[in-house]
Amino acid sequence: MPGIPPTRFVYLGPEGTFSEQALLTLPAAAKGTRTPARSVPEALELVRNGEADAALVPLENSIGGQVGVTLDELVNGSPLVITREVVIPVEFVLAGRATDSGRATDSGRATDSGRSAGSGLAGIRTVAAHPQASTQCRNWLRAHLPDATVVDMLSNAASAIAAAGGEYDAAICAPIGASAHRLAVLADKIADHADAVTRFAVISRPGPPPMPTGDDVTSLAVYIAHDRVGALLAVLMELAVRGVNVIRIESYPTGERLGRYVFFLDCSGHVADVRMGEALQGLRRTCADVRFLGSYPRARAGEPPVSPAVDDFADSVAWLARIRSGELA
Amino acid sequence: MPGIPPTRFVYLGPEGTFSEQALLTLPAAAKGTRTPARSVPEALELVRNGEADAALVPLENSIGGQVGVTLDELVNGSPLVITREVVIPVEFVLAGRATDSGRATDSGRATDSGRSAGSGLAGIRTVAAHPQASTQCRNWLRAHLPDATVVDMLSNAASAIAAAGGEYDAAICAPIGASAHRLAVLADKIADHADAVTRFAVISRPGPPPMPTGDDVTSLAVYIAHDRVGALLAVLMELAVRGVNVIRIESYPTGERLGRYVFFLDCSGHVADVRMGEALQGLRRTCADVRFLGSYPRARAGEPPVSPAVDDFADSVAWLARIRSGELA
Amino acid sequence: MPGIPPTRFVYLGPEGTFSEQALLTLPAAAKGTRTPARSVPEALELVRNGEADAALVPLENSIGGQVGVTLDELVNGSPLVITREVVIPVEFVLAGRATDSGRATDSGRATDSGRSAGSGLAGIRTVAAHPQASTQCRNWLRAHLPDATVVDMLSNAASAIAAAGGEYDAAICAPIGASAHRLAVLADKIADHADAVTRFAVISRPGPPPMPTGDDVTSLAVYIAHDRVGALLAVLMELAVRGVNVIRIESYPTGERLGRYVFFLDCSGHVADVRMGEALQGLRRTCADVRFLGSYPRARAGEPPVSPAVDDFADSVAWLARIRSGELA
Amino acid sequence: MPGIPPTRFVYLGPEGTFSEQALLTLPAAAKGTRTPARSVPEALELVRNGEADAALVPLENSIGGQVGVTLDELVNGSPLVITREVVIPVEFVLAGRATDSGRATDSGRATDSGRSAGSGLAGIRTVAAHPQASTQCRNWLRAHLPDATVVDMLSNAASAIAAAGGEYDAAICAPIGASAHRLAVLADKIADHADAVTRFAVISRPGPPPMPTGDDVTSLAVYIAHDRVGALLAVLMELAVRGVNVIRIESYPTGERLGRYVFFLDCSGHVADVRMGEALQGLRRTCADVRFLGSYPRARAGEPPVSPAVDDFADSVAWLARIRSGELA
Repeated sequence: MPGIPPTRFVYLGPEGTFSEQALLTLPAAAKGTRTPARSVPEALELVRNGEADAALVPLENSIGGQVGVTLDELVNGSPLVITREVVIPVEFVLAGRATDSGRATDSGRATDSGRSAGSGLAGIRTVAAHPQASTQCRNWLRAHLPDATVVDMLSNAASAIAAAGGEYDAAICAPIGASAHRLAVLADKIADHADAVTRFAVISRPGPPPMPTGDDVTSLAVYIAHDRVGALLAVLMELAVRGVNVIRIESYPTGERLGRYVFFLDCSGHVADVRMGEALQGLRRTCADVRFLGSYPRARAGEPPVSPAVDDFADSVAWLARIRSGELA
Repeated sequence: MPGIPPTRFVYLGPEGTFSEQALLTLPAAAKGTRTPARSVPEALELVRNGEADAALVPLENSIGGQVGVTLDELVNGSPLVITREVVIPVEFVLAGRATDSGRATDSGRATDSGRSAGSGLAGIRTVAAHPQASTQCRNWLRAHLPDATVVDMLSNAASAIAAAGGEYDAAICAPIGASAHRLAVLADKIADHADAVTRFAVISRPGPPPMPTGDDVTSLAVYIAHDRVGALLAVLMELAVRGVNVIRIESYPTGERLGRYVFFLDCSGHVADVRMGEALQGLRRTCADVRFLGSYPRARAGEPPVSPAVDDFADSVAWLARIRSGELA
Repeated sequence: MPGIPPTRFVYLGPEGTFSEQALLTLPAAAKGTRTPARSVPEALELVRNGEADAALVPLENSIGGQVGVTLDELVNGSPLVITREVVIPVEFVLAGRATDSGRATDSGRATDSGRSAGSGLAGIRTVAAHPQASTQCRNWLRAHLPDATVVDMLSNAASAIAAAGGEYDAAICAPIGASAHRLAVLADKIADHADAVTRFAVISRPGPPPMPTGDDVTSLAVYIAHDRVGALLAVLMELAVRGVNVIRIESYPTGERLGRYVFFLDCSGHVADVRMGEALQGLRRTCADVRFLGSYPRARAGEPPVSPAVDDFADSVAWLARIRSGELA
Repeated sequence: MPGIPPTRFVYLGPEGTFSEQALLTLPAAAKGTRTPARSVPEALELVRNGEADAALVPLENSIGGQVGVTLDELVNGSPLVITREVVIPVEFVLAGRATDSGRATDSGRATDSGRSAGSGLAGIRTVAAHPQASTQCRNWLRAHLPDATVVDMLSNAASAIAAAGGEYDAAICAPIGASAHRLAVLADKIADHADAVTRFAVISRPGPPPMPTGDDVTSLAVYIAHDRVGALLAVLMELAVRGVNVIRIESYPTGERLGRYVFFLDCSGHVADVRMGEALQGLRRTCADVRFLGSYPRARAGEPPVSPAVDDFADSVAWLARIRSGELA
């Protein structure tokens, strides 16, 4: 059994950002406590020292830029494991104070057709936005608010707060940020890439992994002794011969000065699977070190499972038993 | 010939951050114009439309979190190439106004021994810092300023400006930020990882690559049609059989929804090398697509070259000529 | 130019065996001189010392068992090359003296339906046959001549001679052996495997190889320093990445005592092909040694070519030229 | 338990050849019955139908040329397994009648120094020899009996018999052939390759394999669906990632017309080994078919074991158990 479900959650704050939005998709978190942390290291430290049961932090993220920090924290310090991934669409909205005369009446209309916002945008001269948020909405801003001044803010939540306080005319923020600060959505889905997603990890202290679902991911940090393409080739061969797929691979930028190279791998399958078990044992034999970072259900909505059928493994086990006993006829 | 050297440079701003510090290490940039850009996309757009000759932007960076943006920009839009990489150490300093009575007299002493700063820190109650900067100096702050309040700022440069303006008692910033704003260095090398580096790329419009130096890097974006470990294995085999090493590999997070997978590869060697030429041709035949992102001198100071000797290629060329002509005896 | 065509041929004797039959399929040999040799080493020695221009010897052969000798001779001593392969069906006939009363009248009928020979076989009590010939016709003999005594002979030709001399009632031999010794074919196609073939090689002193035909074979002896599966894997990777197929592979039985392992490889393609040239250079760099044993037209009648299209190579060459010159747009 | 030891042996005859010599090295055969068979198929048929318990036949043999027949028989028909390999040196002697005046007195001296036989050879004008035996002693014959006529015989045993009967002055035969027919050894070790060996297999009906010894061989017939280098590469990867070595590989010459390719593999290790078990299961999943041909002790005298240490497997099993249970700390 995977043990007692977590009740005390910490997440990368501040409140009203995508991390909180992702956390709220978890039923357990919706019922438990949810505390924002100032940084990924702080969040994971609260888990390590037992003050929290689980931390939700960005894992793969074109927006927050925290990925490197999360991986770094997972590799260094005492072991932690990913028990769940949460993938949410990166949806930015332009939000403003609902009480403002002109814009308030337009807000309903604007949400009908996100990318061609109405005349309610006319009065907007200043937009508060995190630099990466404004970067991701660059084309929309150019088309709809070419003359507005974009003011850099420290977070999407801070942008919403500044707009709510009347400091600026509007804010680019997450939908949760608009509602949390009682802002009207003046235009939704304003990001240039409509289908961008952010991937978060729920991270806990080590324990039995969640049960296999048939479509799971296993995350690993793999160390090789030398900067050699042959060593990486050997790692991939261990996976390939067991039919384990590579969903994501990333070399760790700063490891090389230590004479060791680290690769982060997200693989298809669960540590309890026969094929994954064999592959992990192979990596253990081949690599300088392997750090297991968790097996958890795959969360990519709408994507087909990447795990192959397990039938071929069952057949080969039975066949081996026969030839070992001499039953060849 | 690599053509006319660039004179008009743009870099990821604002002024006084690590990007400007990296840019100033280039002799051509020290003589030319240097314009800060608000974002990586803006910087590259200035190069694409001809308003700048080259952009210096972060490429691999545990601090700025802009890596994803840079790779995204290199892969999408009209072709650009990396012509140079710059690697600089990530050195944070604690800086304060030199005119302050108590601290000014201590500043000289403090720099003598970075990690154990003197009593001059006593009066510091507020520290302005970019969140990732304060994260990277977490242990130092805990040891030396356990009671100070850390205030989040939008950039390292903004932190220095705020300290210079008297808004806060001190700032965590780059050495260049301290000197640019006439701040005294109260403690230097305060980052928890003493040897962290940031890697920047100088990016230009396509043209003949810089001459090979014997220790070069070639950057590629490699597309494979399916999410299969076998396809990645095939890519690595193309490199391995030619003795081309993989310095860095990263799967591109958002490409998979398009049914295509992208990998960024930094490889040892130059596009003009025989071995790299063969490997690139092999990738071209094997992969759905290959985007060449530049060949440039390797900048990792103090590291041995990763390129193998070229003698074995020369020998094999001569041998093939002999057997083709029938001279076997 | 492949030089002056050979006119003086030697072949593995004696006369009237499959080797002579194979040699006669060559137009040049039909016009030139044809001398039987007592053994493969003797045949190749006559080529090496210039007394013959070319030798036809078995290369892959379930019958003569001389394969090992041929490969051994190709690997040791001064270089020789295969310039042509000849593949002929292994057709055995049962032959007897045509003047014998009873059987002579039946002989025409017998050839109508090889496997169910007529009543003319009734008087046969002794059959002369090379042991491997009688082995290959075991089922036929059991069905049609269950009571006949099979007498071992030194060659298929010797069997025919003994039957012609009246020593034995019948002989198992090649069709050419029956006609050479004026024997009547009492039953044809009597081998148990109807589609067995023997492969012969025409071997000459080194010289420019025959022109590529688009469906060629290249034979190699590849030496690896250690008895390691990894070394063999590396050899196959060199071929695989260039799209060169393995038609035949055989480890050389006695090489291992010398601390070196030898593999014989028949590969798809011609030494003049770009892909084969690259693969050979790769093997030269990877292996302890590579001995080129010739490129020649593929002779397997009725089989599709194994060479892939060359278009992908041409495209990749043009692409590399473009990126080397900086023409990326 | 491997079951009841065999007592009724059959071997490739005739008597007095290397096969009988090899069989006599087995203690069980020395005590049991030993029946010569006329051919490998006949020998194996006696095992298949239960008239014999085990057959000793050549498996890898530069002399008898029966290898192809043995492999063919192992692949076709009802399953048989190799339970033991016997490797014996191929030592040819020149033997003559001991009663002959001149030569008899020399025979003792001649054996003192094999390669420089004494004056007792002076009277020899005719030498009976199997063609492959005389081929292997070519250099010796040229040096010591340049004027003698070599007469082809059907087997090494037949040569000895002919010399014993006075038909010819001397015979080239196995040491066992000389002693069996009371011939004096006029010169020993006359083969040109002093260290040539022949490998024989003891073949039985299926049953539990012999116990592992720590230095075993496993023989396999591996079928792949297409004539593709990639398929062979996949087979070798399955072996390589488990540290299973390839001692011998041979593609089966005639299989390709059926659209299937067969490879014979001799691998290091025993079917009962964890690493071999995993590798076999992998081949079963990867290949069109795998036929297990037996696990048996490695017989190559004086060669170091090729099996790697098993410790890495034991360690990886324990490690996997830990991470599956969540014990990471």
